[in-house]
Amino acid sequence: MRRCVLVANGNWQNPEWHAKQLRENDFLVGIDGGAQHLYQLGRLPDLVVGDLDSLDAEVARELKAGGCQFVVYPPEKDLTDTQIALDLVKQRGFRDILLLGALGCRIDHLLSNLFSLVPLVNDGMRIKLADPEQSLWLFPNNELKIEGVPGQVVSLLALTPVTGITTNGLKYPLQDATLDPFCPYAISNELIGNKAKVSWSKGVLLGVCFSRPNHDYI
Amino acid sequence: MRRCVLVANGNWQNPEWHAKQLRENDFLVGIDGGAQHLYQLGRLPDLVVGDLDSLDAEVARELKAGGCQFVVYPPEKDLTDTQIALDLVKQRGFRDILLLGALGCRIDHLLSNLFSLVPLVNDGMRIKLADPEQSLWLFPNNELKIEGVPGQVVSLLALTPVTGITTNGLKYPLQDATLDPFCPYAISNELIGNKAKVSWSKGVLLGVCFSRPNHDYI
Repeated sequence: MRRCVLVANGNWQNPEWHAKQLRENDFLVGIDGGAQHLYQLGRLPDLVVGDLDSLDAEVARELKAGGCQFVVYPPEKDLTDTQIALDLVKQRGFRDILLLGALGCRIDHLLSNLFSLVPLVNDGMRIKLADPEQSLWLFPNNELKIEGVPGQVVSLLALTPVTGITTNGLKYPLQDATLDPFCPYAISNELIGNKAKVSWSKGVLLGVCFSRPNHDYI
Repeated sequence: MRRCVLVANGNWQNPEWHAKQLRENDFLVGIDGGAQHLYQLGRLPDLVVGDLDSLDAEVARELKAGGCQFVVYPPEKDLTDTQIALDLVKQRGFRDILLLGALGCRIDHLLSNLFSLVPLVNDGMRIKLADPEQSLWLFPNNELKIEGVPGQVVSLLALTPVTGITTNGLKYPLQDATLDPFCPYAISNELIGNKAKVSWSKGVLLGVCFSRPNHDYI
């Protein structure tokens, strides 16, 4: 099955970085205005999903003319555009998901995006969210491999209770540990070398990795 | 009991706004480098908590000379400075908490800060997080009153399953609704007038309100 890349209408300040994330045969989904980012990179989305309130009408016409499929929803709906897009690609059988442009700083959207992923991960989807500054992984296969540079910050957060966590290659090791969502204590761990491995037996674990070593974000 | 204001070392780009949030008789806690923000506003923290890795040594000396109490932890610890500070003020009996400087964009810190609040709210603390752009409320008394301007965005997120939610004064009303953390569907509601009320019967609800009407953050 092809990888599916969903592009939300978030932070897109570094188009070169985003262009490098896309592979030739990805199934590309533009989430509303996110379709415009793909268009500006010269890539035709396979699918556009949303209420079209943030997609330029002229661009929408060009995308339709190019053969891009549209799934349009009314603007007043219970779910966000991103949630609707995720459900759609799940129904179409995609399991490996890269979600771009979804890590902006509007806190309600960020939390809603992350929380919406938990049932999908429980159903077997492997999801990565990324921007030029950070990567977030939610994997169901109970093993996360991280590549980076020594000193790079790695945080682990339990989105549901997570048991049997063991790490290799991190400065503060965990051995058969349990993490509870409401007592997060695995923040700001660090890569010792260039690789680390985190394994766990049960639960939805969120790995957060920053792309610059020891970068102080706030 | 006095209100307790905790100042983390996050976004402080608008010191005038922050100065206006502080009342004369607040119990002020500087979380590590956050103490420096209070110092720069001409306010002496009652307490400084942290590993002092982000507090200027000269400022620390002046604060100590002024009578400010310090609780210093080693830098390699399981909990974050903010979590330690929250536990301390809970032990000291504070129940009304304003947390400033904790809404920066380092996602692991933001999630860790929010998740850490859930047990405190379950124990009866009323917590507000704010910066010039947004306010977040976690209240245990099952009623949230919001004041703002028509069209202002209000999102509701369940941090635990929340039941019996009823709203007044919001564009998309809820009546005895249930929200699940992993199916967030109360994002981007709006104030109809200048006031709204959200009540619920059980669970930890996070209210997010943006200070500019219909501002598109991402």
